[in-house]
Amino acid sequence: MSDRKEFRDLASPAAAREAIRSLDLMPDPESVPLSETRGRVLAERVDAGIDVPGFDRASMDGYAVRARDTFGADEANPVELDLVGAVHAGATPEVAVEPGTCAEISTGAVMPDGADAVVMVERTDEVGGPDDDRVDRIAVRTAVAPGDHVMVAGADIAAGARALGPGTRLTPREIGLLSALGVDEVPVRGRPAVGIVSTGDEIVRPDEELDPSRGEIYDVNSTTIAAGVAEAGGEPVLYPHAGDDYEEMERLLRRAADDCDLVLSSGSTSASAVDVIYRVIEERGDLLVHGVAVKPGKPMLIGRLDREDGGESAYVGLPGYPVSALTIFRTFVAPAIRSAAGQPEPRTATVDGRMAVRERYGEGRLRLMPVGLLDLGDGTAADAPAGDPTLPLVYPVDKGSGATTSLVEADGVVAVDPDTEYLDRGETVTVQLFSPDVRPPTLLGVGEDDPALNRLLDRLENPRYLPVGSREGLRRLRDGVPDVAVTAGPTDRDVDAVGIGGFEREWGLVVPAADPKDVTGVADLVDRDLRFVNRPPDSGLRRSLDDALDALAETRSVTRRELSDRIDGYGMTVRAFESPVRTVRDGDADVGLGLRETADRLDCGFVPLGEQSVVVHAASDRIDRAAVAAFTTVLDDLDDVVAGLPGYSA
Amino acid sequence: MSDRKEFRDLASPAAAREAIRSLDLMPDPESVPLSETRGRVLAERVDAGIDVPGFDRASMDGYAVRARDTFGADEANPVELDLVGAVHAGATPEVAVEPGTCAEISTGAVMPDGADAVVMVERTDEVGGPDDDRVDRIAVRTAVAPGDHVMVAGADIAAGARALGPGTRLTPREIGLLSALGVDEVPVRGRPAVGIVSTGDEIVRPDEELDPSRGEIYDVNSTTIAAGVAEAGGEPVLYPHAGDDYEEMERLLRRAADDCDLVLSSGSTSASAVDVIYRVIEERGDLLVHGVAVKPGKPMLIGRLDREDGGESAYVGLPGYPVSALTIFRTFVAPAIRSAAGQPEPRTATVDGRMAVRERYGEGRLRLMPVGLLDLGDGTAADAPAGDPTLPLVYPVDKGSGATTSLVEADGVVAVDPDTEYLDRGETVTVQLFSPDVRPPTLLGVGEDDPALNRLLDRLENPRYLPVGSREGLRRLRDGVPDVAVTAGPTDRDVDAVGIGGFEREWGLVVPAADPKDVTGVADLVDRDLRFVNRPPDSGLRRSLDDALDALAETRSVTRRELSDRIDGYGMTVRAFESPVRTVRDGDADVGLGLRETADRLDCGFVPLGEQSVVVHAASDRIDRAAVAAFTTVLDDLDDVVAGLPGYSA
Repeated sequence: MSDRKEFRDLASPAAAREAIRSLDLMPDPESVPLSETRGRVLAERVDAGIDVPGFDRASMDGYAVRARDTFGADEANPVELDLVGAVHAGATPEVAVEPGTCAEISTGAVMPDGADAVVMVERTDEVGGPDDDRVDRIAVRTAVAPGDHVMVAGADIAAGARALGPGTRLTPREIGLLSALGVDEVPVRGRPAVGIVSTGDEIVRPDEELDPSRGEIYDVNSTTIAAGVAEAGGEPVLYPHAGDDYEEMERLLRRAADDCDLVLSSGSTSASAVDVIYRVIEERGDLLVHGVAVKPGKPMLIGRLDREDGGESAYVGLPGYPVSALTIFRTFVAPAIRSAAGQPEPRTATVDGRMAVRERYGEGRLRLMPVGLLDLGDGTAADAPAGDPTLPLVYPVDKGSGATTSLVEADGVVAVDPDTEYLDRGETVTVQLFSPDVRPPTLLGVGEDDPALNRLLDRLENPRYLPVGSREGLRRLRDGVPDVAVTAGPTDRDVDAVGIGGFEREWGLVVPAADPKDVTGVADLVDRDLRFVNRPPDSGLRRSLDDALDALAETRSVTRRELSDRIDGYGMTVRAFESPVRTVRDGDADVGLGLRETADRLDCGFVPLGEQSVVVHAASDRIDRAAVAAFTTVLDDLDDVVAGLPGYSA
Repeated sequence: MSDRKEFRDLASPAAAREAIRSLDLMPDPESVPLSETRGRVLAERVDAGIDVPGFDRASMDGYAVRARDTFGADEANPVELDLVGAVHAGATPEVAVEPGTCAEISTGAVMPDGADAVVMVERTDEVGGPDDDRVDRIAVRTAVAPGDHVMVAGADIAAGARALGPGTRLTPREIGLLSALGVDEVPVRGRPAVGIVSTGDEIVRPDEELDPSRGEIYDVNSTTIAAGVAEAGGEPVLYPHAGDDYEEMERLLRRAADDCDLVLSSGSTSASAVDVIYRVIEERGDLLVHGVAVKPGKPMLIGRLDREDGGESAYVGLPGYPVSALTIFRTFVAPAIRSAAGQPEPRTATVDGRMAVRERYGEGRLRLMPVGLLDLGDGTAADAPAGDPTLPLVYPVDKGSGATTSLVEADGVVAVDPDTEYLDRGETVTVQLFSPDVRPPTLLGVGEDDPALNRLLDRLENPRYLPVGSREGLRRLRDGVPDVAVTAGPTDRDVDAVGIGGFEREWGLVVPAADPKDVTGVADLVDRDLRFVNRPPDSGLRRSLDDALDALAETRSVTRRELSDRIDGYGMTVRAFESPVRTVRDGDADVGLGLRETADRLDCGFVPLGEQSVVVHAASDRIDRAAVAAFTTVLDDLDDVVAGLPGYSA
């Protein structure tokens, strides 16, 4: 084995936070046009540079008067004033109001010289002149005091007054005030530049071609973390991927340090890549923390990289698995970026919930446990899982940290202290959401995967569906977390559930187009030399296939096992309903287990073996939930949903 | 008067909402690069197009083996296997694992042919070959089952499986999953294009020169609403301002309708501009709603504008005052933009609070009352204002809707039903924040405005300070809403408050540089022909000036009134501490009341008349609040704060 670094003497999470706090990520302030300031943070106080309004301003439509002239006027005894002209908004007054006169004035117009109040138009009457075709006098039916319906210059805000303080986050209203002050270039906190260097040999960017035979996978962490950086108020800078060219990787790391306030890399599975990082830090920088007592995240690195210009860049090495990388980023790095950008901790970044199951722990280090959330919201089923019925349910998501789908099957993490032995069912926990914008699903479904079901789910608002297969789906429904389980084919589990709808689908054997090997049924798999590709035992298709084998075994008076042992590939199971069909289409098998729909869609041949029922079961204590009712409604519209799906019927 | 439209037969708020719902703002979906999708909403379901991983993948560092070869192995009885080579991540395996052999394998590497499990490196030992300098055998100290530490192809997500549903808002984690699937162009909901046409003759854009003598003011609504549109998920399009060129305005409105899904204008104070809007809608469009029974917002218009291409654009006319425009936008328009963009209602858009005062109402139409918020948070002072002590205080902000500063002095609005007569003190109300990003202040201060105070406020996190003057400040402190009041000069009000700090400032008469009229003191104002500019009676400077006049009156055995009547401009008061100084500097007065600091800063001369104390008073039941304690701490560091401020001492 290569000579790998060991993570001994793990730092405590508190020490890791302290180390990150000691790094300087603070960018210089900058000046940006007002129209681009939304969400930015003021770098300094902004005082008013002008009076607002900049003039004594009429705040009503009416007549500008000398208040003294109206004293004593009322409905019964109006005062008549000579009309000397009009002043409109946006125009310099061309009249002055002498004693005994008035001028028509619009809201927002400049008060003419001499006038000190406005009479609302509603309290006046026009009085005809000698010829009656031209108004030349106004009857005023109320008395006004000086200043009435006038906003004096600077009354809104006066030049020199404090308008907005440093650290103010700019939302539409602050932008409005800056606009009123004529501030069109705004001093704001800089966004820390965060360089993201991807280090795995096997990593390919999403816009490139993938070669799975070389073990290549798409780069998940760079894009996830880049989005997280932007969300925290930083400016992500993605560096090109160096592949297995270690000199290039070293050059990129140094360049990122020169360009950025912070450099992030995510743990590579390649020892050589890790060695490059160590070499760069050791030659030009400091390693402050090497391993942290937190799960996941043990291999976290924290350090400083020297710059060409004599300055320093901060460096954090994140773990490699996507959920681990996002968790460690969110817990340790995002707060530092926000702080450098002057952004507040978002109010929606954490939510309280209650454990839907009891979860054992006791591993001696801080665990950041990935969890899913389900907000029962409407309060039904309140007492099914214990705990505060107003809180959403929280359940652990453990697919292994390598799974990228955990990113969307979990909503965040619960921090479990090293000395916690277990979290009890119903216990209140705080969930740190992966992002403040995470919206927990309204409905949790589990079970079979199916193309018609996918169309149904498309019609629901924000559902989560875990395709765990029929048997596992029913098991989870019985355990009380999901709202619904979907089964296909025969089932034998008893759960306290209500069928809320379903449909029929045609299943059979999928063969290459035109069926070159002339496959006619299950017996061919047993008797002929055909490469088969199967689905796992917990899937509905597999249950139906096994039933067909049982029937064949009975006619031959043998056991099913005796038949299945003779099928080449019976044990070769693939994950999704489309997988066997793809295997056949790609020429890697002669026959696959599948649906007519999939065979048709992927241009394969199909040997029908029967129909099986797909049934949606709702937990009986969740039937009244709005989200379950919505699912039931959608199921009522099946004809429309299955239209155009070959082999389906409502 | 011009022939203005009257708003009769006001629509109900519900009818206005219905009218807006009937408009079609929905833009076409679009395809955007993955790196630009944060915050966007998926337009359609995304199914996995590839298996992830695309190959059987080692999920541990160790040795790839045939599981059967390890059966029976344990710590006491290791099994030795021949090492036939190594497989690294990102490389095609060049070895096959035959019975009795193994291959070194890195996490993420492709499983070599023949191997079906991985033994962790920690459960193995290297065994030297004949020459002992080259490892050629591995001792395996554990048994593994087929599949152990192997992630099979498609186990994370298989081709054809549902990955993300339509309507999913894209946060870092969803972006990560799309990245794993190699989706680099993402189908997302379009952002509705929202044209903003400004219609007032007096409106000037913030990057242009302002001429206050013509009654010009900076455009507040266009920028505020543009930021609100972007926040709601729309794409604001600002059209150039047409000023008083009504043909151009008409052309712009038609162009905006042609280009945009929605056109917004905000109420003009100019009748002619309103007439242009009516003409455009009447000639080519429909007016659905003309006036709504809501305060503010009565003059709201809702309609449709025909497009050149035969389509339609929605149109909403907002009221003209900034707070009214933002309130109506937030209440009626933003939900429609969000809905068209597929964006959810933000969870932080509303907060509950308790009324800090009793507020009378009863106006017969829905009132959207602007309010400020103060989160007492730490629970101290819990019972001072009544109501649920965990809720923030809510107090009405009524500066007149024309004030742009209301935008930042209020945090949102409370909807008060037409039949509500009053909101009681302590009553729980729901505040619709002006924006989901609004953060209510941590501290509410009122009172004198002062440059050293401004520096102190800069050191606090998110304070709100209302410069209402010393007397009004104390009055409000007594009424129980603010935390602190700041007074300057002599005060005579008794309030239950604790002085938490203060400083001295030098005040006097401000004159042009070099004092061309040789002003020496207050007597000159009375005895000579000097144009004076004063501050309002509730300011600390005015109180000190009046005290000086009292002293002079006593020496002359006259009343203060007799002296002040002889001062030209004694009644001419301006708003902020800097305002009299600016008036003098600009040549519009010979002498102004002000501070040495301001005189020095604006290059004016200064005739000192004395020092006055500025004192920070905290409400006695708020002393323990964290924000008040932070203010006290900042006050302890006064020497630093007043350093470089002429005329100040701690």
